Amino acid sequence: MTTSDPFQAPVAYDRAYLDDAIRTASVAAAAVTDGLPDAAASDPVALGWMQGFPPPPERRVVLDPTDNRFPRNRWAFSHVREMRPTASVWRGPGPIAELPRGPASLDAELEALAFTAATGEACTLGASHALTYVDGIAILHRGRIVHERYFGALDDHTPHLAMSVTKSFIGTLVAWLAEEKAIDLARPVPFYVPELAGGGFGDATVRQVLHMTTGVAYDEDYTRPESGFRAYGLAANFSQPLPGETAGDICGYLTTIGRLEPHDARFTYRTVNTEVLAWILRRVTGLPVARLLSERIWQKLGAEADAYFIVDALGTESCGGGLNTTLRDLARFGEMIRCEGAFNGRQIMPAAVVHAIREGGSRRQFADGDGPHYPLLRGGSYSHQWWHGHDAHGVFEGRGIHGQRLHIDPRAEMTIARYASHPFAASSGNDPYAMPAFRAAALHLMAG
Amino acid sequence: MTTSDPFQAPVAYDRAYLDDAIRTASVAAAAVTDGLPDAAASDPVALGWMQGFPPPPERRVVLDPTDNRFPRNRWAFSHVREMRPTASVWRGPGPIAELPRGPASLDAELEALAFTAATGEACTLGASHALTYVDGIAILHRGRIVHERYFGALDDHTPHLAMSVTKSFIGTLVAWLAEEKAIDLARPVPFYVPELAGGGFGDATVRQVLHMTTGVAYDEDYTRPESGFRAYGLAANFSQPLPGETAGDICGYLTTIGRLEPHDARFTYRTVNTEVLAWILRRVTGLPVARLLSERIWQKLGAEADAYFIVDALGTESCGGGLNTTLRDLARFGEMIRCEGAFNGRQIMPAAVVHAIREGGSRRQFADGDGPHYPLLRGGSYSHQWWHGHDAHGVFEGRGIHGQRLHIDPRAEMTIARYASHPFAASSGNDPYAMPAFRAAALHLMAG
Repeated sequence: MTTSDPFQAPVAYDRAYLDDAIRTASVAAAAVTDGLPDAAASDPVALGWMQGFPPPPERRVVLDPTDNRFPRNRWAFSHVREMRPTASVWRGPGPIAELPRGPASLDAELEALAFTAATGEACTLGASHALTYVDGIAILHRGRIVHERYFGALDDHTPHLAMSVTKSFIGTLVAWLAEEKAIDLARPVPFYVPELAGGGFGDATVRQVLHMTTGVAYDEDYTRPESGFRAYGLAANFSQPLPGETAGDICGYLTTIGRLEPHDARFTYRTVNTEVLAWILRRVTGLPVARLLSERIWQKLGAEADAYFIVDALGTESCGGGLNTTLRDLARFGEMIRCEGAFNGRQIMPAAVVHAIREGGSRRQFADGDGPHYPLLRGGSYSHQWWHGHDAHGVFEGRGIHGQRLHIDPRAEMTIARYASHPFAASSGNDPYAMPAFRAAALHLMAG
Repeated sequence: MTTSDPFQAPVAYDRAYLDDAIRTASVAAAAVTDGLPDAAASDPVALGWMQGFPPPPERRVVLDPTDNRFPRNRWAFSHVREMRPTASVWRGPGPIAELPRGPASLDAELEALAFTAATGEACTLGASHALTYVDGIAILHRGRIVHERYFGALDDHTPHLAMSVTKSFIGTLVAWLAEEKAIDLARPVPFYVPELAGGGFGDATVRQVLHMTTGVAYDEDYTRPESGFRAYGLAANFSQPLPGETAGDICGYLTTIGRLEPHDARFTYRTVNTEVLAWILRRVTGLPVARLLSERIWQKLGAEADAYFIVDALGTESCGGGLNTTLRDLARFGEMIRCEGAFNGRQIMPAAVVHAIREGGSRRQFADGDGPHYPLLRGGSYSHQWWHGHDAHGVFEGRGIHGQRLHIDPRAEMTIARYASHPFAASSGNDPYAMPAFRAAALHLMAG
């Protein structure tokens, strides 16, 4: 590693770096929520979503294409199973792995912890929860819960939609099976899924799919109805068909995707890659992903609750963004990853799997691709369906739209699980608060 | 009580009684499954329902109006949440109330236990499981599991559709709130649900609804598409709309029901009564039924798993038949009822609630109404959404179509929880085996 290559140097993540990096982000943060109700004004309990028997029309969150739109999303993300068919991820018969708790004084310190947001605002960690429309956040230090809060429609035992943090679960399972030599990342996708031979994935390797460097013709723009995301959302049961639309199913949709550009040129965030990984997992293991995740991880993790996936019309799990877990179970998964596969008194997965993930991906492909859309991740990379900071703390994250986050800071021995229902999908609305806040928490915990 | 009144005398339930009572039933039992695949030939795992990624068209069980039809029902009844939106009944954070186990020798004795079916066939208890298309059965004696079997798509941790055994949960909650004076059974329904003032329930009392003696215009015929059951099934999310149909919702559907005949004349089994009870429960407690059941029972029962309800488009639980539980959790609920509200080391509900239920209903109204459709329940009654044998054992049951059963035999200190996927809805297909088999088990356990 030489510091002359900017893609090899660790990212300092200091004040100067932040000031430089967040210019775009801070504008976005100020702009996106401008004029919208804040967290208190959009509190789903106060607004009375789905209250009343039956709820009156103006309080309904129903199966229509507006499900996820703010402020209904503030209710919906904690009640997904009440609107969609789902498959359970069984926690198994074993005892819960209780998470020890830090002192109340530390919780209070963190609540009041001052930091400067990337917008320039003076802020506290506690206040940042409302600014980022947090539904629940748990900060773990050395395995102890040192800060935990729930807001609005979420509580400590209800699963919340993980959105694209789901992808990090899928990528981890693929990395594990690759470590076991059950999946060869160098193989072309059709070696495992012949149905994809004729389309855009036909000449992609599993590795390219895993690191999202395929050049398939799929547009992740959530705001344009004609983008691929609409067709994918229908197939994956995220969206409800309008008159004239048909839902289809995930596997069928994947076979329709062509190629836009060469593979392996750059990182382009396309959710369909994850669905291909899930299809490979099913074919290699012979198991539905919900059962694979249960057998390999959930049953060993001492999870507090069953998790669940949204499923499509054929029972196929929506693996690009359809996992729902309790907040603490997300934190348990994060702790297991932070501790190199060891959790709940056992080695759940080989440490080598986490080592492979933490190597990260190509920072040049990240910078040449979608990386610049995430100014606070400048200098980072994407690999194994995880986001890597390449900073001095070795931070890596699972990230989902509307503020879902699994933040792992190995140097600070800190894991943060956060579920949220931000008005907008893009992370530019919450990163300017969350990234400096998480770093401030890390430094405070390291100093303590 | 005088034996000169046949509706006051206990039913002997001996051989002579059976021989006399089951003539109709035995014909039905022989007829209904004639020519259909037997349990082994319709095993859902062997048939490969929903196997493959994705399952090929000929193996799919999908969201269409044939969901529940044999042999697809053998898979579907153990996978309801994968096809429908559902609401969780949280088990709470407490420990599981482990059910102690009897000796393996007793399990084997019960497996081989000989009895004569109401069809005249010599049979064994073990063999009767296949003849009644059982998915799971647990026999408890004095709180110990003495016989437990799973078949096909069911296992010990997966919830199965309880069908109309759901009603007994709802009736028990209503009886409980009546005991607390929170519900006055003598009140007219619109006192609690004004929306029902203009329809067939407008001048019915809660008691008439509870005991299913209302005369509302609703036809429970499952075989005629034009019956009320089709409209109800659509509203309650049991059935999928065909082109040109709309689903509606449960509460909206209830307001459309008129009156056919005077209330309180006779027992007529109409599922919509239970949905009215559920609406009353919500209004009186301010809670969704899923949460009410969780807070009052599931969290105290030491349940092994969360249960769940199918919900309609407005999140309203389908309380006429939409509850899903694991087999052992159904058994725990039954044991709590058998033990007069005491279970898991605590008095979960007042004994007076069970006493009220066990008083049963009017045997004359039963005989004058739908009673004769159940030849093996001759002399019985229906009250509080439970079926009462008025026999020497004091047997009472929760009963659901396709073979769902919660059988409580107080004299034998025996509870039987059974989930099944019989080809036909009517109990005439399985009662001729189940009723004598259950009685044989009771006598064997009492003798042991």
